[in-house]
Amino acid sequence: MKPSDFELPIDYLRSRRNNKWHMHPDDVIPAFVAEMDFAVAPPIKAAVEKIVAQQDYGYPKRIGERAERDVCDAFARHMKRRFNWETPAEQAICVADLVQGTFASVLAFSDPGDGVILQVPNYPPFRESITSTERKLIPLKMHDTGERFAHDLAELKGLVDAKTKIFLLCSPQNPTGRVFSKHELEAIGRYAIDHDLIIVSDEIHADLVYAPLKHIPIASLSPEIAARTVTLTSATKSFNIPGLRCGVMHFGSPELMARFHKRMPQRLMGQLNITGIDATIAAWEEGRPWLDAVLAYLAASRDRVVDVLAKEIPAIRVIKPEATYLAWLNCERLDLKSTAYDFFLEHAKVGFSAGETFEPDHTQFVRLNFATSTKILDGMLERMVAAVRQNRR
Amino acid sequence: MKPSDFELPIDYLRSRRNNKWHMHPDDVIPAFVAEMDFAVAPPIKAAVEKIVAQQDYGYPKRIGERAERDVCDAFARHMKRRFNWETPAEQAICVADLVQGTFASVLAFSDPGDGVILQVPNYPPFRESITSTERKLIPLKMHDTGERFAHDLAELKGLVDAKTKIFLLCSPQNPTGRVFSKHELEAIGRYAIDHDLIIVSDEIHADLVYAPLKHIPIASLSPEIAARTVTLTSATKSFNIPGLRCGVMHFGSPELMARFHKRMPQRLMGQLNITGIDATIAAWEEGRPWLDAVLAYLAASRDRVVDVLAKEIPAIRVIKPEATYLAWLNCERLDLKSTAYDFFLEHAKVGFSAGETFEPDHTQFVRLNFATSTKILDGMLERMVAAVRQNRR
Repeated sequence: MKPSDFELPIDYLRSRRNNKWHMHPDDVIPAFVAEMDFAVAPPIKAAVEKIVAQQDYGYPKRIGERAERDVCDAFARHMKRRFNWETPAEQAICVADLVQGTFASVLAFSDPGDGVILQVPNYPPFRESITSTERKLIPLKMHDTGERFAHDLAELKGLVDAKTKIFLLCSPQNPTGRVFSKHELEAIGRYAIDHDLIIVSDEIHADLVYAPLKHIPIASLSPEIAARTVTLTSATKSFNIPGLRCGVMHFGSPELMARFHKRMPQRLMGQLNITGIDATIAAWEEGRPWLDAVLAYLAASRDRVVDVLAKEIPAIRVIKPEATYLAWLNCERLDLKSTAYDFFLEHAKVGFSAGETFEPDHTQFVRLNFATSTKILDGMLERMVAAVRQNRR
Repeated sequence: MKPSDFELPIDYLRSRRNNKWHMHPDDVIPAFVAEMDFAVAPPIKAAVEKIVAQQDYGYPKRIGERAERDVCDAFARHMKRRFNWETPAEQAICVADLVQGTFASVLAFSDPGDGVILQVPNYPPFRESITSTERKLIPLKMHDTGERFAHDLAELKGLVDAKTKIFLLCSPQNPTGRVFSKHELEAIGRYAIDHDLIIVSDEIHADLVYAPLKHIPIASLSPEIAARTVTLTSATKSFNIPGLRCGVMHFGSPELMARFHKRMPQRLMGQLNITGIDATIAAWEEGRPWLDAVLAYLAASRDRVVDVLAKEIPAIRVIKPEATYLAWLNCERLDLKSTAYDFFLEHAKVGFSAGETFEPDHTQFVRLNFATSTKILDGMLERMVAAVRQNRR
């Protein structure tokens, strides 16, 4: 795989009907929603084309087995191969998307009024899974330590009580791009055991970790931690197929799964469509060469973003993300008169994700999605530099 | 559209990987799961091919709007055009499948121990939505009146009390193929008002009604009935795309929708995949010529099943279905030593749906799916005739 195998030109991107390239007017470069401006892996392309060529749109079962079970089998093999985590496929179920899995976990393992710990800033729908269901959001701040973003569990003291039921973990973390160390994850695990919390761990970015760091599934640390951990993952983020909808929800013990299903019957989750099923299986079983090539490309783009901003707009503080194709830009020192989102949209014609959607007081932050071709990325950076210079005059 | 445009040969059907043609060994003709052995409508084919050709797998939105809203708009237009039912698209949401919508309704509008009225026999997952969630199934028997299947609401007397919360209606009814008259539906509506019940109306077979009968959405009868009615429908049954997963859940009033979402947040339902979305829109907006041709073909197949059985195996009682491509065969007078399902599977090598999965004591019933090519259907009927003759010797 070489870059020209997956880079897509701007006209082609605009010819499609997804949200990223139509949310804003055509003079705006979009860099918000977490999808990549890349062609999908050849095995995924082939898998979906096969279904469509055959019009194989019947009830998605495979010989002798519900097709969704094949997704769970592929998940278990992928976890073993990639993270050396051995876990039974029988402890996994399918969900349409990870937000569904998060809402289902919050509803299954807590009641209105109960507390849910969430690292902040965080992905807006995860905040919503707590606030819109009348749970209490207990924030655990990701601090800029100078080197990286990190939380301090000691800050939870006085906030966590017997009504705190869930630790909603995002690992690697979005939007800060942190890859948590074994030490940090063990501390979270211990904390959950000590406070009798369920860990709901969104690990959707697990395959997008930059060397030499490695992702560790928190449920892989020990059977005690696993027994209270729901792991959510999918191939849709790392293999760029969000519109096909297919995720996996894994329970660290059969008891935890039974407890979940007591409140959330399997059929309440809905069943998966066949394109999501087959694309996900193809991704996890045969997608590695594409993923390796894309990760190398993303690593170079990440360095480019950090280097250009350090050189041209040092007032923007950015810590090199350890994972994800998202850079979390602190624009406080730009002394803007508006939100950072509004400033760049208006003056640079670049459409970021607004910081305040990740944490209400983060109006001077934006999230930059650098998963696009170098050419588009360079255009975006040039526009940012010009807008900031213009603003200083 | 002519039959050769959608008929599919047996080898092709077996070359695909869906359940219908792989559940049984190759010497069995499958006639169970409710999907058709027909090619999909050309507009559906084109809609899905377009997505795949463009790899348009990003977050499924359309310009300025979530793509799921487009499904709800298409639903509202389809209801108006086909059933003269005018209702706001804003009162509809998307679900992956109608079983999900049924489970969600049962969980939203009742509590464990509450009663749910269900016409029996009925589709197994609808039974399950009551029994597996610890609700009480209050059966309303569909009687063979000699002319048709019909229930008698008077039989509910003594069974329905203040803890009865839902009337789970299947209209047209599966497996009996009944199309309820305006009079019958009004009586159900009045009953629901008198007993303060929510009507959950599965209308997935609404587009598969044979002339001169017409389907009437129960929510279209009056605002009072609508205000307590959840209507579930989809294009997946009538347009033969179950594996693409896309359904609609419509609330007869904004208040009913709000009451639902209080217990079942929208994001708990999961989001739809883009193939299901675009295929459904294509079906409802442009699928009519295909549907008309397929319905004419199915009407002839229905007559063939009824006529052949009346002539060759009069001991099998079958009432001509008014809707659906499913015939509900009463085999009691065959005096079989096993279940009817086992008999035909073993001796005719035909795989029906077993009557007892629709109602436990209906072991002498099977459901025959006649949505296949005339050639395959004739083979199936021949095998049945031969097996019954052999059995009589």
